[in-house]
Amino acid sequence: MTSVTAVYERAGRSFTASALAPAAADRRFWPWWRQRSRSHRFDVTPIPFGELVDWRFDPATGNLGHTSGKFFTIEGLRVRSDHGPVREWDQPIIHQPEIGILGILVKEFDGVPHCLMQAKMEPGNINTLQLSPTVQATRSNYTRVHRGGRTRYLEHFVGEERGRVLVDVLQSEQGSWFYRKRNRNMVVEVTGDIPVHDDFRWLALRDVLDLLHTDNIVNMDARTVLSCMPFAAPGGDSGSRHAPPEFRAALARSLDPAAGSAHDLTELLSWFTGERTRHEMTARLIPAAGISGWRRTPHEIAHEEGKHFRVIGVRVEASSREVPSWRQPLLEPVGRGVIAFLAKRIDGVAHVLTHARVEPGFVDTVELGPTVQLLRENYTGLPQPRYLDDVLGADPSRIRFDALLSEEGGRFLDAQNRYLVVEVDEDFPAHCPQDYRWVTLGQLSGLLRHSHYLSVQARTLVACLHSLW
Amino acid sequence: MTSVTAVYERAGRSFTASALAPAAADRRFWPWWRQRSRSHRFDVTPIPFGELVDWRFDPATGNLGHTSGKFFTIEGLRVRSDHGPVREWDQPIIHQPEIGILGILVKEFDGVPHCLMQAKMEPGNINTLQLSPTVQATRSNYTRVHRGGRTRYLEHFVGEERGRVLVDVLQSEQGSWFYRKRNRNMVVEVTGDIPVHDDFRWLALRDVLDLLHTDNIVNMDARTVLSCMPFAAPGGDSGSRHAPPEFRAALARSLDPAAGSAHDLTELLSWFTGERTRHEMTARLIPAAGISGWRRTPHEIAHEEGKHFRVIGVRVEASSREVPSWRQPLLEPVGRGVIAFLAKRIDGVAHVLTHARVEPGFVDTVELGPTVQLLRENYTGLPQPRYLDDVLGADPSRIRFDALLSEEGGRFLDAQNRYLVVEVDEDFPAHCPQDYRWVTLGQLSGLLRHSHYLSVQARTLVACLHSLW
Repeated sequence: MTSVTAVYERAGRSFTASALAPAAADRRFWPWWRQRSRSHRFDVTPIPFGELVDWRFDPATGNLGHTSGKFFTIEGLRVRSDHGPVREWDQPIIHQPEIGILGILVKEFDGVPHCLMQAKMEPGNINTLQLSPTVQATRSNYTRVHRGGRTRYLEHFVGEERGRVLVDVLQSEQGSWFYRKRNRNMVVEVTGDIPVHDDFRWLALRDVLDLLHTDNIVNMDARTVLSCMPFAAPGGDSGSRHAPPEFRAALARSLDPAAGSAHDLTELLSWFTGERTRHEMTARLIPAAGISGWRRTPHEIAHEEGKHFRVIGVRVEASSREVPSWRQPLLEPVGRGVIAFLAKRIDGVAHVLTHARVEPGFVDTVELGPTVQLLRENYTGLPQPRYLDDVLGADPSRIRFDALLSEEGGRFLDAQNRYLVVEVDEDFPAHCPQDYRWVTLGQLSGLLRHSHYLSVQARTLVACLHSLW
Repeated sequence: MTSVTAVYERAGRSFTASALAPAAADRRFWPWWRQRSRSHRFDVTPIPFGELVDWRFDPATGNLGHTSGKFFTIEGLRVRSDHGPVREWDQPIIHQPEIGILGILVKEFDGVPHCLMQAKMEPGNINTLQLSPTVQATRSNYTRVHRGGRTRYLEHFVGEERGRVLVDVLQSEQGSWFYRKRNRNMVVEVTGDIPVHDDFRWLALRDVLDLLHTDNIVNMDARTVLSCMPFAAPGGDSGSRHAPPEFRAALARSLDPAAGSAHDLTELLSWFTGERTRHEMTARLIPAAGISGWRRTPHEIAHEEGKHFRVIGVRVEASSREVPSWRQPLLEPVGRGVIAFLAKRIDGVAHVLTHARVEPGFVDTVELGPTVQLLRENYTGLPQPRYLDDVLGADPSRIRFDALLSEEGGRFLDAQNRYLVVEVDEDFPAHCPQDYRWVTLGQLSGLLRHSHYLSVQARTLVACLHSLW
């Protein structure tokens, strides 16, 4: 018999202690990282669909899939909504019903929790190599465990021998590009000796969080797992160089339930329920051959006006003979996005302005997203998104976080977004439109114990906020 | 600025106080109820589909829908699963994307919270009239507010003038009969004077819970809202006549987080995530004309072997001229189900055995269901469901709850199930199969603040458990 939240809260205190420890990444991390980058050389070359060995368009539906039936398919989605500037559209969508594992292994060294991070190559990555969770495995990967192609360290996350689970929750991925995709976000603690392969490294949590400030190092899968970690309200100051002391203190209070919040949890949940109710959206999978507004050539599936994204094929070849080469489709967005939280101190407690976003691929219609999230090219001719000026026109002294971060390089090619946290004045209006709410970091952390509340972009920003206090 | 859980926890203490107050329903409730039953007389007559005015089968798809495009449609569902005795099937399914409101208005009288309950007729109800929430409105209903057909008391649940929201959460309905249906479960507190229409009555919470023990009085919509109400651990004993004192005390401890539980919340959430991951099920809407294993006649859509359910049309006529008559399709299950929780004291704390159920219409694959849930006729020739003998063969002295309760009479005809809570010996094995877990009532209550955790049948049993302590 155990008390209700013991494990989670104990982990929260421990992670916070780790985050308060001084950073050492500059000294220990970069030599390893440079060495890994030299060891892994890959060429990623666009190829026509006709050369995508093992992938083919179904003659009846036009869906693009692997001949094994595994991995994912590119299908069509027909969307009908009663809100927003565009209410009816078709689009290609990635359909991947199987649930993968994104897992970070945690172990204490000298009382400080460290994360076993991986230097992992993905074909769509900026810089090819990014810092990834210990385990990043699709179900196709890990059910193959006993037939070769073993995923390292997987045994610590599933099966009889696994470690002590601290976090284990399904979270969504891009609702504009994936149909109801969820991945299993896990944090597992181990105590025994773990052999460390060359591509892996134990890093203090503080170091991992600090690396978020360097462009395109910490990958999306690592960011989402970091966002789900519990953090108790820090008692002391980290001395972080990334944010001024007053903002750090306001963020620390934002993790403390006793410090209060603009809306209590009942109000917040009620608002969220109201937003889900208010939006009626139906999104049905249809044959890719039947979607309108898009055209397929031998080289790409692209929007007729060049908007949004295109789907292409690539060939991936490794410089070393050990790693096999392969071919696969990737989704390439047409440009760089801007993704930002406005942050504001309310009675000394940092709040961020979250937006109830409707995306057709969400499992349940609405998830909490950033204040601003846009692919700029998509908005030509449409109304200017709210709060965009507050983000892009912010005085540099008010920018608390600003880095280019990549989306999942196993599915997306060169998909990098500029992620920002901008602190507005305390006299910035607290009043906001119906689909926005000011929430604390502690409230977002609490919701992240459950599925379908925060979008993957909001989760990246939550991880970035944890790097600031 | 408010503290994080203030409103919810205060309401929990207040509801518990109400539940501990002595019951008075026998004295005050029944005369009103009998009078209401006499005032509302309805005839519900099966008719051929051809006489369903305003409903028609789409010639292209065979889907049955209302000519306005509103309400709901009967479509086809194609299910492919990797678990269970039957892994591939087609079936008709009710598709109703709009989200309705099920709301109970609460007000304190002499310090005791009362619920404004409604005597409401639904065509499929056993006994026609059942005790229903204050508001039971589809979105088609309530967006029509200003064009006549006003839903009474709706203004307390939506809009500027609404009361203080205590509960507001989307919950699923039958995943075998509905495609991704959710309703908004609300509890709203008011303090001002409320005119009480003849069909409505303020009842103490204890009285409403007590009425669960009478067959087919408290409707499904009322039960699900009751299950979402917060209850603090009771300090005293209710003196309830429904359960022996030791079981009442064990249930009271089951609401107290400090009393402990077989699994802490982190373990429980991890198990649940594992169950969602383990099951791969795809359920796609397809044209009803394309489903196999079912046949459509002028009178019904029925399974070829007479299993599961059938869809028919009915004509509803009121005895009084005030209420209009109408025609609609209803889903009629082929028999009565058995739905039960096994309960067991672990270190003096009552736990129930929940089952991670896969149903094709769930929004996210798996929800927590009862220990046993079956429509007996469906299991002919299939393996006997687990724990069925423990329920049906239980010594009468171990049965803590046993009543026939109806499912939603607006969609289902004569759909009544026998709901049971059976307490097993303390030496009943705590060990259980992978897809079952022993959980406390407090844990289930906590999960009910969020969507997509408990099935509607489990929620009915949670309401029944609250009637026992």
